[in-house]
Amino acid sequence: MDHPYSRIKGGVCAPKGFLGGAISCGIKNPDSDRLDLALIYSEHDCLSQGMFTQNRVKAAPVRVSQSHLRAHPARAIIVNSGNANACTGPTGMKDARTMAKEAAKRLNLKQREVAVCSTGVIGLPLPMSRIDPNYDRLIKSLGNKNGNDVAKAIITSDTHAKEFAISFDLDGTRIRIGGCAKGAGMINPNMATMLCFVTTDAKLHPTCLERAVKEAVEHTFNRITIDGDTSTNDTVLVLANGAAENKTIARNSKNCEIFSHALQFVMGKLAKAIVRDGERVTKFVTLNVKGARTGVDAKKVAQAVANSSLVKSSWNGEDPNWGRIIHAVGYSGASIKEELIDIFYESKPACQGGLQGETNPEVLRSIVSKPEFEITIDLNLGAAEHTIYASDLSPEYVAFNRSEYAYWKQAQKDGLL
Amino acid sequence: MDHPYSRIKGGVCAPKGFLGGAISCGIKNPDSDRLDLALIYSEHDCLSQGMFTQNRVKAAPVRVSQSHLRAHPARAIIVNSGNANACTGPTGMKDARTMAKEAAKRLNLKQREVAVCSTGVIGLPLPMSRIDPNYDRLIKSLGNKNGNDVAKAIITSDTHAKEFAISFDLDGTRIRIGGCAKGAGMINPNMATMLCFVTTDAKLHPTCLERAVKEAVEHTFNRITIDGDTSTNDTVLVLANGAAENKTIARNSKNCEIFSHALQFVMGKLAKAIVRDGERVTKFVTLNVKGARTGVDAKKVAQAVANSSLVKSSWNGEDPNWGRIIHAVGYSGASIKEELIDIFYESKPACQGGLQGETNPEVLRSIVSKPEFEITIDLNLGAAEHTIYASDLSPEYVAFNRSEYAYWKQAQKDGLL
Repeated sequence: MDHPYSRIKGGVCAPKGFLGGAISCGIKNPDSDRLDLALIYSEHDCLSQGMFTQNRVKAAPVRVSQSHLRAHPARAIIVNSGNANACTGPTGMKDARTMAKEAAKRLNLKQREVAVCSTGVIGLPLPMSRIDPNYDRLIKSLGNKNGNDVAKAIITSDTHAKEFAISFDLDGTRIRIGGCAKGAGMINPNMATMLCFVTTDAKLHPTCLERAVKEAVEHTFNRITIDGDTSTNDTVLVLANGAAENKTIARNSKNCEIFSHALQFVMGKLAKAIVRDGERVTKFVTLNVKGARTGVDAKKVAQAVANSSLVKSSWNGEDPNWGRIIHAVGYSGASIKEELIDIFYESKPACQGGLQGETNPEVLRSIVSKPEFEITIDLNLGAAEHTIYASDLSPEYVAFNRSEYAYWKQAQKDGLL
Repeated sequence: MDHPYSRIKGGVCAPKGFLGGAISCGIKNPDSDRLDLALIYSEHDCLSQGMFTQNRVKAAPVRVSQSHLRAHPARAIIVNSGNANACTGPTGMKDARTMAKEAAKRLNLKQREVAVCSTGVIGLPLPMSRIDPNYDRLIKSLGNKNGNDVAKAIITSDTHAKEFAISFDLDGTRIRIGGCAKGAGMINPNMATMLCFVTTDAKLHPTCLERAVKEAVEHTFNRITIDGDTSTNDTVLVLANGAAENKTIARNSKNCEIFSHALQFVMGKLAKAIVRDGERVTKFVTLNVKGARTGVDAKKVAQAVANSSLVKSSWNGEDPNWGRIIHAVGYSGASIKEELIDIFYESKPACQGGLQGETNPEVLRSIVSKPEFEITIDLNLGAAEHTIYASDLSPEYVAFNRSEYAYWKQAQKDGLL
């Protein structure tokens, strides 16, 4: 079937019973009025599911949210941009807990019902003097039309806010899923972190939600890369408040599968939007690996190719350079046979059996000159596949990421160092 | 002791009984007279030891040299630059064998006594029509003062030839070790490949040579990185012809240890020269990891940090950004405790116990503003250590590696595609 989803407006506020709000506190920049503190709040009790960075250096808000979610489902999320509150020790933990506590107090929630996220520069203390006076103002900003403000408040080096929402029918009841996201840690690591918040008014069994979130993340946010760096703050949080009043979606049911696909559709849109808006990115490349002996091998090949500086530089140069691709396949660690490898640009063979393929290089060049194209590597050894959504690497990316020193200078000025 | 080596001139021709020669055949560029075909030859029988790329996609000359060396020690090396003869299938194998055969014929050697190497663009057939008419001219170029010609002939995107030779005393006999190298595959992958040829007139037991080479490579060429890419052609070849007429160095002897250190000294000079001459490199960074639980962990941390695009971009920007370093430590896969990690720039603590250290950022900045500096990451968990020599990543590197398309166009013009 074609997907039966209607795109709707509202982002995280599209589902019933969710409010959002955002204000400017000067965390990103004391001299600007860019939104940098946001709140998402459900008027009803929620189920919640979180997935967090695999980096062993974890930011304070990640640790606090993990511990809150273990104790109780979340009903609200407070999030700041401009500072990651990472590598900030006991002070950072205290600051993250304070943010949750102050929001909870004003929302009549328990502290553990509030998740907390931060994104921005690593290693500098959170400027609490800018946040503390503003909790009341943040609460006042809440409204059911402010999803876009939340989306704006969480971005850092992203060039635009990213949100997406859909509705679909489930046994005659309308269900809504809405979300917003900001540049992946792997994409926008200048300020570190991929954040994604998704809300839904579906009523469902906790096990259905848990599995749906894990599967959706595996097929979306776990399949994008820009520079192979995994941030200290990556967080996906999903809140489900049941306000659609559908018949509870049972675990392992057909309806749970439908919900799961819909969630994956929303997360897929957000994940790809992150790649397209990667720092100084000019290409969006769908990289398929097939014919691998195992799924692990397929993934190794996809990651080696998608993270090779040389492959990515050649994409930036619109050079159909399959030699660099096969050389990354060779060092991926996957089981391969050089003489069996085929590489296609769209449907055109660039490399056949490990050798220069029959396609005229000019044809291949016209494919990689498009802003979005697809490359398929067939190892011809087995049936396992893996797909990654990747970007090029540009001289401008490197130039952009040369220095965050200005943040340190500002922190010194603020007396934080 | 300070090292007891005297630096001498002559590169691979510095040791007694070794001749070198190089000519221009137009492989690099039909319209230029840059040297691109070279020969190293020992007047005496040799022991030889080779180490080859771990990439599972192996260039034809690598396969041919591996098979030759398994059958017989090498006494000569023929090498071209400008084309890697990789991903060239049966034709490539035939071409590599032809190069060895034609050299052998003229040197009165068996074909398997000649190793063959190529470096350059991947995936294009070797232009044999430029090589075939030139074997006699190549042989005529041989001489005992031409080490520098060989060093020049093997470079591709390197900005200068790299050679180094020493002599030292062993029980009253003078021993010489000389070598040349070209940009690491990991450094100069625009044209792919790290090559290193070392000659010595030491007389030694084959097991001593084998162990000395393996250990020297492990501590030198295996500890450098620019972009984490491993080429299809990486090759280290060491020939020992015994012309110094020293008493044969026994395996496991004190003298074998002395030889081993000397070999490592020469290879270390060449390996570091490769990093310093990396494509558009502006920094040479000695990255020490200590206090790891295991050697494997220490290596994982060193490699993750040295290959992080973000860390390398910050080095280019002269930004003392320990946040990016600790974030790469976190995703390295090594066992770590965030709150125990110390990071030093030279001797100055930038991060102590996972937190901003006591050093003024301006002091750290002055350290990373130098062309060469040292960073030490102490995990404070164990006794294992690992050191890597790394470079920055510059916008110019990416720009330089955007396209090799001109080579394809030339190959089309040459009727090779």
